[in-house]
Amino acid sequence: MEKLECLLCHRLYPLNVFFPFCPECNEPLLFSYPQKRREILLEREGLEKYLDFLPLDRVDRSLSLGEGNTPLIKLTRLSKKLSLSSLLAKNETLNPTHSFKDRGSAVAIQKALSLGLEKIGTVSTGNMAASTAAYGAKAGLKTYVLLKEDTSSEKLLSTAIFNPVLIKVKGDYGKLFSKSYSLSQKLNIYFMNSIDPLRIEGYKITGYEIFLQLERKSPRFIFVPVSSGGHLTGLMRAFIDLKKEGLIKNYPTFVGVQARGCSPLAQAFEKKKLRFTRISKADTLAHAISNPDPPGGNIALKMIREHGGMIVAVSDREILEAQKMLAGEEGIFCQPASATVLAGLLRIKKKFKFKTQDDIILIITGSGLKAVDALDSSRIHVHHTSISNLENVVKSTI
Amino acid sequence: MEKLECLLCHRLYPLNVFFPFCPECNEPLLFSYPQKRREILLEREGLEKYLDFLPLDRVDRSLSLGEGNTPLIKLTRLSKKLSLSSLLAKNETLNPTHSFKDRGSAVAIQKALSLGLEKIGTVSTGNMAASTAAYGAKAGLKTYVLLKEDTSSEKLLSTAIFNPVLIKVKGDYGKLFSKSYSLSQKLNIYFMNSIDPLRIEGYKITGYEIFLQLERKSPRFIFVPVSSGGHLTGLMRAFIDLKKEGLIKNYPTFVGVQARGCSPLAQAFEKKKLRFTRISKADTLAHAISNPDPPGGNIALKMIREHGGMIVAVSDREILEAQKMLAGEEGIFCQPASATVLAGLLRIKKKFKFKTQDDIILIITGSGLKAVDALDSSRIHVHHTSISNLENVVKSTI
Repeated sequence: MEKLECLLCHRLYPLNVFFPFCPECNEPLLFSYPQKRREILLEREGLEKYLDFLPLDRVDRSLSLGEGNTPLIKLTRLSKKLSLSSLLAKNETLNPTHSFKDRGSAVAIQKALSLGLEKIGTVSTGNMAASTAAYGAKAGLKTYVLLKEDTSSEKLLSTAIFNPVLIKVKGDYGKLFSKSYSLSQKLNIYFMNSIDPLRIEGYKITGYEIFLQLERKSPRFIFVPVSSGGHLTGLMRAFIDLKKEGLIKNYPTFVGVQARGCSPLAQAFEKKKLRFTRISKADTLAHAISNPDPPGGNIALKMIREHGGMIVAVSDREILEAQKMLAGEEGIFCQPASATVLAGLLRIKKKFKFKTQDDIILIITGSGLKAVDALDSSRIHVHHTSISNLENVVKSTI
Repeated sequence: MEKLECLLCHRLYPLNVFFPFCPECNEPLLFSYPQKRREILLEREGLEKYLDFLPLDRVDRSLSLGEGNTPLIKLTRLSKKLSLSSLLAKNETLNPTHSFKDRGSAVAIQKALSLGLEKIGTVSTGNMAASTAAYGAKAGLKTYVLLKEDTSSEKLLSTAIFNPVLIKVKGDYGKLFSKSYSLSQKLNIYFMNSIDPLRIEGYKITGYEIFLQLERKSPRFIFVPVSSGGHLTGLMRAFIDLKKEGLIKNYPTFVGVQARGCSPLAQAFEKKKLRFTRISKADTLAHAISNPDPPGGNIALKMIREHGGMIVAVSDREILEAQKMLAGEEGIFCQPASATVLAGLLRIKKKFKFKTQDDIILIITGSGLKAVDALDSSRIHVHHTSISNLENVVKSTI
């Protein structure tokens, strides 16, 4: 009974997990909003709590890895430093594979099993690959991970451990993305890629949790890194849901943040364009959001436009600086792609005056352990001494 | 009012965080059991829920990184494979710095602040270093991390990001551990090391959570990796607490697991010795539990003896095999030290008959991302192809 909708032409289609795109517009399809009243089922746990808002009939608990329920942490020291009264981090690195992707995988895998599918897949080399492979393993499904040819074996280890079928494919990454859907239909492999509509429904739960954690309030601002556009779209849909159900009055202002070296959506937003232009070459150390041709980009742009949000870009230098601040001031070690949210806030703060009562949420999408190679080990300052001289060295630092 | 107790000679001492050892026996001190009735405060959140059981007067929420509340996951596929009816993993990798150490740091940092201390420290190169540095950063305390001389810069990155004072010290690691306490007293630095009594109180919460997650029941078996002995001791104390308060009837059987290449406690247990003998040279890839001279070893041995538990050793080969099984069958990627628990279960299963109704808990202590270098990238099987030939390659794998 679930219908998918094209956000651009508003045509409706039945759910087809093998090809969730509008045949007219080529844009990814999203679930259309149901007519029925929905509510958060507070007495339940896990996905079941939000079942009314998900395109699932039931939840098979045995497929869960314990995703969600991530902490919303007050950034007390940063707030003070930046003269903001309520700056908070939604720390998605406390998910089972240490990134927000688990939210989407958890919902998509439910659908895969309820449809009786036996094979899933994804096109990714990073967080999504590990997440999909982990949930595929838990469900006992054969999992295909399609990779860029130049992916290093080291980078693959944290996905390979889940024992998926790994295939490195020569050629253009965008074409590989399209190709995955032709395989999907021919071979009954559900490719739960970045803009998969079930995956995006899973991202909504982060939004509902924020609402509950703020004691049934809407935050004023939400900063989120933007790559394919799927995560931003999911989070925005959560607050559309909450508004529709009369649970919040004010819609938050979403600020999508991209890395300057790969910022097709920030560029389109700045130029007030309806559609983004593909970037010829990405150049940023924030690999997890380095997507020159984001498949959900036009939809994300449309939603941001319609809800008074913005998309900004930050430099790699700003990203690394923000990453250090989050760790050094607040004890949160995130990957560079995630640090963009603080970099974006610092950038906007220069021209924008936040009000004292504004809750500002930074979505921390992935763990720093995912990209330790982005840190420069030569810049670590280490003292060297012997046990007998240790006291003197410690005293010199006090 | 809190008293520390020597478990060996039963003398009582006032709390001194700078030197928590029995001056007579040299053994680490633990908090003595209070006379008052205690209960879990279900309507509260975080540490406050367990405040009755903790040696804290109050909880400062601003010091939390969102530790705890980790999932207890049914290992459905492994249960079936091993013909066990209820095998579960308590996944401690979903803590803020992705290891169980955060449980201890979270409690110790509360005490540091309530005592008005400004400097903390730890002797560690791994999980504890990152955890202590993260909580130190969050609290705005100066944090000292004392390291072995041969620690690689790469290994330090995930600790250095929190901006502690890093000091590499030449000489014996055991002597460095002792030296930290002489510095502690002279320079007012609270070294919250592995067997710190506050840290051990923090580990108890994992036990209370398991009790609640099993719907107020005691599991039959708990498998936990053993290094210094602190974690095992904390978990065992949780169930002593629950028994004292009449919340459980049966005390679980604890199985401590060590890596064969560094198993002083398993050796002492096997030989029925009251005290362990220091190992001359550790040789295991499970670095996180490679402690040749565990400071809490004799206490852990005593507790295991008194409560009918056991300590076993497993080989590196068994550890890597168990690590692969946990990931490939259950979607849980842990570090080798943590995989010992499944290796230990597999070993015991050969001679021991588990009953059908037995709940068996594996404590998964740290994330696989902490020790990616333990995996052999040359053994990953990757297919190579072009986009045009992709379909054929995929078909060949079905």
